[in-house]
Amino acid sequence: MKKLIITISREFGSGGRELGKRIAEALNIAYYDKEILLEIAKKTKLAYDYIEQVVEKEPIAYYPITIARSINYYENTYVDHNIVIYTEQANVIKELAHKSNCVIVGRCADYILKDEKPFRIHVYSDMESKIKRCREKGEVGENLTDKQLIKQIKKIDNRRAKYYEFYTSQKWGDKLNYDICINTSNKSIKEVVDMILEAIK
Amino acid sequence: MKKLIITISREFGSGGRELGKRIAEALNIAYYDKEILLEIAKKTKLAYDYIEQVVEKEPIAYYPITIARSINYYENTYVDHNIVIYTEQANVIKELAHKSNCVIVGRCADYILKDEKPFRIHVYSDMESKIKRCREKGEVGENLTDKQLIKQIKKIDNRRAKYYEFYTSQKWGDKLNYDICINTSNKSIKEVVDMILEAIK
Repeated sequence: MKKLIITISREFGSGGRELGKRIAEALNIAYYDKEILLEIAKKTKLAYDYIEQVVEKEPIAYYPITIARSINYYENTYVDHNIVIYTEQANVIKELAHKSNCVIVGRCADYILKDEKPFRIHVYSDMESKIKRCREKGEVGENLTDKQLIKQIKKIDNRRAKYYEFYTSQKWGDKLNYDICINTSNKSIKEVVDMILEAIK
Repeated sequence: MKKLIITISREFGSGGRELGKRIAEALNIAYYDKEILLEIAKKTKLAYDYIEQVVEKEPIAYYPITIARSINYYENTYVDHNIVIYTEQANVIKELAHKSNCVIVGRCADYILKDEKPFRIHVYSDMESKIKRCREKGEVGENLTDKQLIKQIKKIDNRRAKYYEFYTSQKWGDKLNYDICINTSNKSIKEVVDMILEAIK
């Protein structure tokens, strides 16, 4: 039987993480998100918090990794760690996907696992829904005004886009990199799950 | 009961028309594509072939219609007809959608019917699949080389994009204009139908 690997790329506040968890629960398969960072911490001896900080920040260099490597562009420890962590992350993701059926959220998994032909989902929504979802989930500071929140959402997505583009040389959110793109504006994640289950049948 | 209106925007060769027909059949609801042009012909007294030619061509002006109207940009009959036809098309689409549940392919229907909150699908695929689908369907000249075919596919999509952008001031294919975007590369349209049926349940 073909291995079932589902990757979820998501805009911040679009409900991608909840979608991933619910799909994994419904299918009774593994769900990986921050667990991957724990595995990297074990393998690299770098602290979990440091790893989290590195992967949440945008890469410093502006060259795609393929070019940057060939011209020996990197010279400082922070960038070195960035690449060590990305490489370990790719290894961990491949190991996990090899082990069992799973859902993996973020982390360029769609690209890293492309040879395994995962089912690649991209989740997005309009700004109004993102704000509503962020406030409901309490994922952001309660004291932020809408304007501040919008700024933060855009910043996080911008970082995700740069991270993805840096390591994959592909455009984050480009439809062609995904099997399906779902607009979760004004939708409950629960109803989206059933559709995905039908899609992967 | 809420009216069910499904609009399908599609890249050429991605199977959007087949998807529309199959969804309409499965739900036993009306399907509209070229039928709309017949209605316009009746209403405007312009010949069907002429109408078809006008809607298949890109608008001449580069201003979005909203701006162009305000500065009285149009002066020739062809452009006048273009706008008369678009306006009639919008009327016909609204009438049809008002009459019964339906699937409408192309024709800016997602934008024209936005107040009715249709379920908006965008269908796309990679070039390889487009070529394969075009050849299987015999929709293009058999004698075309792959290179010529690619050129033709791009030309048609470029025209669709310009037409959409001209009349809606929105970007054709921008994810936010659709509820769901489906990559039909290496997929049978039949399997996509079941997913859509689940999505609109």
